[in-house]
Amino acid sequence: MPLSPPPAVAPAPIQQELDAALRRVEEIFDRALQSDLPPVQRLVAHLETYRGKMLRPALVILCGEAASASPTSSVRHPVTPSLPTLTIAAVCEMIHMATLVHDDVLDEADIRRQGATVNRLRGNEAAVILGDYLFSSAYRLCSTLDSQQAALLIGRTGMTLCAGELLQLHHRQNFSIDEPTYFEIVKRKTGSLIAVACRLGAMQTLTSPEHERGDDDLLARFEDFGLKLGVAFQIQDDLLDLTGDQGVVGKPLRKDAQLGKLTLPIIHHLAQAGPQRRAATLLLLEDLEAGAAGGVVRQLLDALDATRSIDHAHAHARRLVAEAKALLADLPASPAKSMLLSMADQVVSRAA
Amino acid sequence: MPLSPPPAVAPAPIQQELDAALRRVEEIFDRALQSDLPPVQRLVAHLETYRGKMLRPALVILCGEAASASPTSSVRHPVTPSLPTLTIAAVCEMIHMATLVHDDVLDEADIRRQGATVNRLRGNEAAVILGDYLFSSAYRLCSTLDSQQAALLIGRTGMTLCAGELLQLHHRQNFSIDEPTYFEIVKRKTGSLIAVACRLGAMQTLTSPEHERGDDDLLARFEDFGLKLGVAFQIQDDLLDLTGDQGVVGKPLRKDAQLGKLTLPIIHHLAQAGPQRRAATLLLLEDLEAGAAGGVVRQLLDALDATRSIDHAHAHARRLVAEAKALLADLPASPAKSMLLSMADQVVSRAA
Repeated sequence: MPLSPPPAVAPAPIQQELDAALRRVEEIFDRALQSDLPPVQRLVAHLETYRGKMLRPALVILCGEAASASPTSSVRHPVTPSLPTLTIAAVCEMIHMATLVHDDVLDEADIRRQGATVNRLRGNEAAVILGDYLFSSAYRLCSTLDSQQAALLIGRTGMTLCAGELLQLHHRQNFSIDEPTYFEIVKRKTGSLIAVACRLGAMQTLTSPEHERGDDDLLARFEDFGLKLGVAFQIQDDLLDLTGDQGVVGKPLRKDAQLGKLTLPIIHHLAQAGPQRRAATLLLLEDLEAGAAGGVVRQLLDALDATRSIDHAHAHARRLVAEAKALLADLPASPAKSMLLSMADQVVSRAA
Repeated sequence: MPLSPPPAVAPAPIQQELDAALRRVEEIFDRALQSDLPPVQRLVAHLETYRGKMLRPALVILCGEAASASPTSSVRHPVTPSLPTLTIAAVCEMIHMATLVHDDVLDEADIRRQGATVNRLRGNEAAVILGDYLFSSAYRLCSTLDSQQAALLIGRTGMTLCAGELLQLHHRQNFSIDEPTYFEIVKRKTGSLIAVACRLGAMQTLTSPEHERGDDDLLARFEDFGLKLGVAFQIQDDLLDLTGDQGVVGKPLRKDAQLGKLTLPIIHHLAQAGPQRRAATLLLLEDLEAGAAGGVVRQLLDALDATRSIDHAHAHARRLVAEAKALLADLPASPAKSMLLSMADQVVSRAA
């Protein structure tokens, strides 16, 4: 008989420390956006509802920790990111949120098509300007670091992700889009910011006084880790939009098909299917674009099943995660490294 | 009888030199936006049609020249701005163009209200992302200077002008808006970027090796010169929207009234008019918002005449220009200074 009840499963110290660091990131984020104008302050407060998983700030912090873990010391040192690391984390989240706010403007397009109200239009106008405010604030906050390298990387990444979004827009309703083009879009629009978050996180600790060398190869590996993770993340997002349960995912689904955005399973299916099946699927996609749901979605999923296209996309995402994890294999063991590896797995196992 | 015909009026050397410098600014601008993706490159090429007076780049260059003019030397030295000065000029123009592109999205709102086409919507989506691309590119380009001071000022100015636009949006359809609120909006949304263009232009030459002191008071005066000029510029813009001739101005007019934006003449009129006249004017504004033109515009202009509200706005703009010019009075005479003074006059005399 045990003398005391078995201990409740406590969150690992690294998780608690990360949560505490993320709260400091939120404080920096909120302070950077503060305005003396009450109408601006009220709009900024709306952003609370946009705050999600804080994936990018977590990666900045954990990549910094994992990069600085000593290969010889077995002493567990607590996660205490520096102010520059927390600032970079807030900058990455702010750029991400700017794109979310503007994505919402773009995605409301079909709601507008079914009849716009003046209110709705005014909401969109505010959203366009609020996104610009976020972009500007991110760059101002980044400049407080006085690191030209960080500023150039953040500016270039902003351009890259916009270019990815423009390429995606260009290929809307393109039913012949191929996989290389899909990956080109996804690398830029999602991969680039996650890649730079990992690189800048590692850079902050590698270029601190204790690590004079500034290991270029290691930084490139962190960046590539982020790029692969980011692409896998987007494939999973696209899969959830297609196959997910709205109640679990928590946002309207089948948006991609409605907006004429072809994602990996559909691109694979159209390339694999014979002429007849291909023609039938194109009709289903047309129906979805026109707003069909229920039965049409089920027919599409059946068609994708016949060419094993959902499996193909899942397998691709899992392969990217395995490649990403392999890039960190040489790093000394540390709680931060373990957490990065389990976050990588979650990217493709998540249902929301 | 003259021996030879009188010489044709040749452009002053300073104008030719400025034009040459502005062409170099355009080259930097275009190069910074280049993309390896053809669809992005095609969108960027559309920006040619947005290129206007290049007021901000001209101010960067001329303020730099005027600030560095020696008080003792009477030798005319040619305008040869440094690469950092030309870069700052391109950055300011790029931020300005980003706001123009997004303003167009906002202004197309009423066209959408009258029935949106899918094409029109796709155009707006591209415009939102293209504006973001311009913002990001401006900040990246600014980072190439490795000047934390410039980066912080540009980032902060981006936030300020967005805050001004949000304040303006907040006061749409507010028929009790007062003059201080109007000026608060205009200082932020238009004045801030023109002010920072003047400050950064002067800063580039004042902090070059020959001018070690970095005269804070002089920089503040250049900034204030730009702020007053910017506000006067906006008042004139608002006046042209109300009273201008569409053929001369070259863009659709009476937009402000249609969008429920009250400008200085109307704010003054509503504050001066008795209850009956005020009620009548409010009905006219309602008609304009609903899309009325011709006779209603004439009635509104007559009403504004009765309270001398157009004169009031003109006088205010002229006073600001006089104050702006006075700020430069102590500067040694130079072609750049003369040109700044005549540009200031043009701000309120222009018909387009």
